[in-house]
Amino acid sequence: MSTRIIELKRSVFESNDERADLLRGELKDKGIFLLNLMSSPGSGKTTTLKATIAALKDKYKIGVMEADIDSDVDTLKIAETGVKAIQLHTGGMCHLDADMTRQGLDALIEGDVDLAILENVGNLVCPAEFDTGASKNAMILSVPEGHDKPLKYPLMFSICDVVLINKIDVAPYFDFDLEKCKEYIHMRNPKAEIIPICAKTGEGVDKFAEWLSAQVEAWKA
Amino acid sequence: MSTRIIELKRSVFESNDERADLLRGELKDKGIFLLNLMSSPGSGKTTTLKATIAALKDKYKIGVMEADIDSDVDTLKIAETGVKAIQLHTGGMCHLDADMTRQGLDALIEGDVDLAILENVGNLVCPAEFDTGASKNAMILSVPEGHDKPLKYPLMFSICDVVLINKIDVAPYFDFDLEKCKEYIHMRNPKAEIIPICAKTGEGVDKFAEWLSAQVEAWKA
Repeated sequence: MSTRIIELKRSVFESNDERADLLRGELKDKGIFLLNLMSSPGSGKTTTLKATIAALKDKYKIGVMEADIDSDVDTLKIAETGVKAIQLHTGGMCHLDADMTRQGLDALIEGDVDLAILENVGNLVCPAEFDTGASKNAMILSVPEGHDKPLKYPLMFSICDVVLINKIDVAPYFDFDLEKCKEYIHMRNPKAEIIPICAKTGEGVDKFAEWLSAQVEAWKA
Repeated sequence: MSTRIIELKRSVFESNDERADLLRGELKDKGIFLLNLMSSPGSGKTTTLKATIAALKDKYKIGVMEADIDSDVDTLKIAETGVKAIQLHTGGMCHLDADMTRQGLDALIEGDVDLAILENVGNLVCPAEFDTGASKNAMILSVPEGHDKPLKYPLMFSICDVVLINKIDVAPYFDFDLEKCKEYIHMRNPKAEIIPICAKTGEGVDKFAEWLSAQVEAWKA
């Protein structure tokens, strides 16, 4: 299988916030919803996306941008679902800003897409600092990472509209306190939606698909 | 328990590489070995350190710097082992450079320390880009993160002298291929030492303590 790989250029614009608002406005006008999905490395972003695509691909024309410093392993996995997937290489950079996101979107929406998803670089710090222009921000925290992460990475939790707690199937093997985790997340962000899932088995993914679908409909209204 | 917290200042020096070499030279003269320990959030850095301290605290005077964007949960855990532990707050920054490391060390080695350990910010990208002045770099990859990480985060694996593969006790519940992981790590860094461990049960930690001890002795020779 061949992968389309875009080598992103470093942005030349000074104000990322302005560029992000501009991009968001353009996407709104075109009726394209953009979800920015973030997490630590290995929290299950790609597996969650595959399950979410399966739930929503008859309803929306989905396109996925896989951002990584190197490799195209995730794009190959997403391409198996039949939706359009492109690989973005950040050239070592730890995050995507609005202009880098636009470079990917330009390639992605040559096809017909109304739900675009950006799988950001695996990193709980830097991606939170740069508005990508997304309609909504989502993040995944997986059970093996521990319930104390909202204490250590405050910004990431405070900017996300929804937090998926993944790998709940292995909870018995880890000291993970779901109630404490929810409490810490809401300390950072009282409005965050929290959805426990197991992307591997599909448990809870219907709830996330429902949430995402409601956001897309509200965006297009 | 009270924690000493240092709010790090942003470095004003232009060349971090020079500052790192300078710090490394000073530490060498003083007979202080500095280990820079890196990983994704939740890979088990603190638990690994606790087990390593238990193995080496009769042999060395150990001091630990816990770098985090916020909170002091890890410093409280390390303090339980009886060694000196201080908390470094990066003020939102995703990494530590040599000068930030020096700010922490100045506070740490007021006491008598010959093995200083920096637990870097949980992040597989940015910390790899900044030489902290450490004698050696170590990283942890945990089983739940997946064996493909060396493909996606090349720099981190290429700069580390030792890679600990943690949480091997839960390997049966994840699709983790240890041999493939070793192959990918050596693709990035043929000289990397690879040590599978379970920090929680202590399995394999003796091998890491042995490796670390050999490095400290070579450094002081």
